[in-house]
Amino acid sequence: MNNSYQIKLTTDEKLAKLRELMKRNNLTAYYINTADPHQSEYIADHYKTRSWLTGFTGSAGYAVVTQKDALLWVDGRYFIQAEQQISGSEFKMMKMATTGFPTLEEWLLDNLDDGDGLGMNGDLISEDFYRKLKNALADKNIRLQTNYHLIEDLWADRPPLPDAPIYIHELKYTGKSSAQKIQEVRKKMLEDNVEAALYASLNDIAWLFNFRGNDIKNTPVSMAFALITSGKAFLYIDQNKVNVKTRKFLEENGITLQEYHLIYEDLPNLELSSIVLNRANINHTLFAQIPASIKIKNKLDYPYLMKAALNEVELENQRNSYLRDSVALTKFIYFIKLNVQSEELNELNAAVKLHNLRAEQDLFIDESFSTIVAYGPNAAMMHYSATENSYSQIEPKGFLLVDSGGHYFDGTTDITRTISCGPLTDQEIKDYTLTLKAHINLARAKFLYGVTGYYLDVLARQPLWQNYMDYKSGTGHAVGYLLGVHEGPQRFNMSYVNIPLKHGMVITNEPGVYKENQYGIRIENDYVVLKDKQVDTDLFLKLDCLSFVPLDKAAIDVNLLENYELEWLNNYQATVYRKISPYLNSAEQEWLKTETASL
Amino acid sequence: MNNSYQIKLTTDEKLAKLRELMKRNNLTAYYINTADPHQSEYIADHYKTRSWLTGFTGSAGYAVVTQKDALLWVDGRYFIQAEQQISGSEFKMMKMATTGFPTLEEWLLDNLDDGDGLGMNGDLISEDFYRKLKNALADKNIRLQTNYHLIEDLWADRPPLPDAPIYIHELKYTGKSSAQKIQEVRKKMLEDNVEAALYASLNDIAWLFNFRGNDIKNTPVSMAFALITSGKAFLYIDQNKVNVKTRKFLEENGITLQEYHLIYEDLPNLELSSIVLNRANINHTLFAQIPASIKIKNKLDYPYLMKAALNEVELENQRNSYLRDSVALTKFIYFIKLNVQSEELNELNAAVKLHNLRAEQDLFIDESFSTIVAYGPNAAMMHYSATENSYSQIEPKGFLLVDSGGHYFDGTTDITRTISCGPLTDQEIKDYTLTLKAHINLARAKFLYGVTGYYLDVLARQPLWQNYMDYKSGTGHAVGYLLGVHEGPQRFNMSYVNIPLKHGMVITNEPGVYKENQYGIRIENDYVVLKDKQVDTDLFLKLDCLSFVPLDKAAIDVNLLENYELEWLNNYQATVYRKISPYLNSAEQEWLKTETASL
Repeated sequence: MNNSYQIKLTTDEKLAKLRELMKRNNLTAYYINTADPHQSEYIADHYKTRSWLTGFTGSAGYAVVTQKDALLWVDGRYFIQAEQQISGSEFKMMKMATTGFPTLEEWLLDNLDDGDGLGMNGDLISEDFYRKLKNALADKNIRLQTNYHLIEDLWADRPPLPDAPIYIHELKYTGKSSAQKIQEVRKKMLEDNVEAALYASLNDIAWLFNFRGNDIKNTPVSMAFALITSGKAFLYIDQNKVNVKTRKFLEENGITLQEYHLIYEDLPNLELSSIVLNRANINHTLFAQIPASIKIKNKLDYPYLMKAALNEVELENQRNSYLRDSVALTKFIYFIKLNVQSEELNELNAAVKLHNLRAEQDLFIDESFSTIVAYGPNAAMMHYSATENSYSQIEPKGFLLVDSGGHYFDGTTDITRTISCGPLTDQEIKDYTLTLKAHINLARAKFLYGVTGYYLDVLARQPLWQNYMDYKSGTGHAVGYLLGVHEGPQRFNMSYVNIPLKHGMVITNEPGVYKENQYGIRIENDYVVLKDKQVDTDLFLKLDCLSFVPLDKAAIDVNLLENYELEWLNNYQATVYRKISPYLNSAEQEWLKTETASL
Repeated sequence: MNNSYQIKLTTDEKLAKLRELMKRNNLTAYYINTADPHQSEYIADHYKTRSWLTGFTGSAGYAVVTQKDALLWVDGRYFIQAEQQISGSEFKMMKMATTGFPTLEEWLLDNLDDGDGLGMNGDLISEDFYRKLKNALADKNIRLQTNYHLIEDLWADRPPLPDAPIYIHELKYTGKSSAQKIQEVRKKMLEDNVEAALYASLNDIAWLFNFRGNDIKNTPVSMAFALITSGKAFLYIDQNKVNVKTRKFLEENGITLQEYHLIYEDLPNLELSSIVLNRANINHTLFAQIPASIKIKNKLDYPYLMKAALNEVELENQRNSYLRDSVALTKFIYFIKLNVQSEELNELNAAVKLHNLRAEQDLFIDESFSTIVAYGPNAAMMHYSATENSYSQIEPKGFLLVDSGGHYFDGTTDITRTISCGPLTDQEIKDYTLTLKAHINLARAKFLYGVTGYYLDVLARQPLWQNYMDYKSGTGHAVGYLLGVHEGPQRFNMSYVNIPLKHGMVITNEPGVYKENQYGIRIENDYVVLKDKQVDTDLFLKLDCLSFVPLDKAAIDVNLLENYELEWLNNYQATVYRKISPYLNSAEQEWLKTETASL
């Protein structure tokens, strides 16, 4: 029986109801963003107010509604998708970072008047955002009204708050007890001369308390807040998610459990003189609960930086999870190559096959993000995802791009391979080889302790820039440890962040070539930063590879490789064979032997 | 007749007199730095108070004197020299950035008490430094007394203020009139909503008003301040330096001349509501003259950024000056190679020879800095300079490093060549070739508009880092246009500055290998950033070489070069021959032909 029977409103009907509510509440404009109260990268369905209102389902974007206008700001990844999804409604697309389109702040300044009220849900904006917006609008007397939950009020069939149980991340995986991590946080509090620390970032909280959850798709976290004082460690979480065993574990680590929402009631009663927090993570409503008498130190959360470099136990585990993940992916490539001529392969059933191969591996939990399987021109769209309504067949020619990863109890992975499915054009081979050069030149880097990922980023881009090509993405991001697949703080990127690379940091290396309506190529391995050699006062670091999946021999033009690049490639391929072949059947082994043979 | 007859005080006698003055003025400590009232990189003898007091003649460093202590802070370049020069006196060396030695601030906090007075000359410290020091000492009630000129009071035979005449830098060299530049400054003032701009940086003032001077050795500037308002442009300068023609020229460009010191009297009477200045350039005494009612905007001086990218006239001139300078240097290398076996060559007479070859070139004015001629192990000291009392013979083996440059009416140059004087060891050849690889990898870079010199720096360091070697200097700095040889804002460096590289910026590329007690190798060409290619929205830039002096064939191991490196090298050497040979005699031509032959 179909239990979703109810009257579905159109976007314009929702808009009409929203405008009615705005009038009643004396709000000239209403702002709807894409966020949860923790400023998470991905959010639970419960918080997808912007999708509900606009019909646009992308992972980012925000809307503004007035009696006259209905506007949706989206970034370059989503111009095409948003255009389709809002067509037929009153919403108009505002292209971010595009000439001719004002920013949110510019539009508000131009279209609101002195005394106008701009409403929004203060739970879903960070204190940083609130301050930035207030500052940007300072020239006009616009009232920011952050206590309105208008979409939530209208949304009849809203999904409930997620309620997945949490589980213990055992010491054999974490290498360090929660009690110990909390003590290290307290040590930093002492150094910073603050009496408490407040956390809202779900990844940081799960790491600090050594638990994991399942509240957000592909991200093993749970909705929670944390408050650490010199004597107490409070975990604010739905108590129904915590079974007896987990409760005992947490309490043994000195953690006091509180109901999730009580954080909003407890903060006003804090008897402290100082607290440290990151205004970019704390939502405006929560921030406003902190008594004015408390001195606030605004800085990056300690756990955010503490968890960036893996300890030796975590690193050993992370290596193991990457090895098993590499076996699954190598088997998958063999499967594609074997069947692309004869079987009906498409982007959807290929993704299912890859899931099944990962699920066969020990300790597998889930994909670390929605697998991207993109054939031919689809891969030129960097954030393409096939759906039941729109997907391509995989043909025995050209490139198939597969970007995927897994969560395991002992780690999280992320890898991209671009697989030749049959004959390639010369241009495809050249672009694959240039992408490989880009990957190699970063992979083999040796660098002094102290440099940032921004400083090294050019090593990957230079081989492509020499050919006047660039990819419109970062080169690499941190990968969490059974946490978010996109983590900070380390990254390879063209924008500067002052985070030096350190021993134990895991980071991706994923340059690419994207040619609209033709193909997309990306080669991604993940690396851990390791100490290499100390020479006098100079400490040299290197990148040590975690991913061992063959590179596509048929797509490589050795004539375009310098000697040191060819040497890197042959070493890598030989290592893949040595590490992966023991886990393959004999047909797979035979294929891998040929695929990884010295060039 | 020797007119320097007078009683010379020893350092300790000077110290005794200083302490007497300190007592009389109730100062517990006195701070003596190395600066002029304009925070110039190099300073006139008139301001060398720290040298006079301590006996240490290096270009940087500062001293603190109390009744008990006499301390001199110096950086790594000068540890050996300072040790020698202060030996026998009461002064003790404090090594900067060295474990076991406190910083100035740390020492002051540890050794001064509440209520103590710390004296200094406020003319010689920037407002930024004053604030930083005050802030660092905030935990103790230490009085910063900035109105004491104690060294100046004691210094009997102090050189007078420099008084060299200024001259017009003609429009055929500048490409833009001073009146036009001043209008552009006013436009920026309008954008920033300020009514005036105050300048103390001598390079910026000379550029803005299209004059040059000769007050500081190797730097064609003149002691001056500038104040720009919407209607007026004031140049504060010793009126005796300005002849009738120059005065007429300046006045025709709308510039009002005032006596140098009047700036201190005029500022308190300013009837304005806002002014823009750079607190890092304005001295504390001057800053204190600005009425409290005037709102101060602190930012980089407009001319500092405006002059960073050369206009097309300047660029054409700069190219010409580099070509003539390259001819002089090429002739010099030939001279060394020809005579190193037979003649008595040493670091001093080689420098004289190089000066004479430059002086033969059209439009030559002066060296752009003191020529470094360093033979053998001397070159391992990055800032070595030979003196009449200490210099080396040049022998027919190993390396001679020559780092030099010239000021010409149409530009300023800077170039380093490491010249093989005879047989080389395998290690010398390997290190020269690695240095060459470092140079080439940066030289051939193509890069997107928007990136900084910090982002590209690793291209030069990577070939050396692969061999676990690093040079303890920046990779490159901006070169002024008949101005300071070390300019900002662009640079290739391991520390981040957010200055994107732009079309028309001149910058050096000078990686090196330095082996203590063995040899030093540096290869420096200068480059101008040029637009290369626009692809869709991507603007690619490149580095275009200005210096054309042969690289040392005997020092290159082609087996260590990748294909693209060898291609760059052969192209470069062929270009050198094509551009330089027309200016050589036939013997020189013949040698150059062999030296630049394809490898």
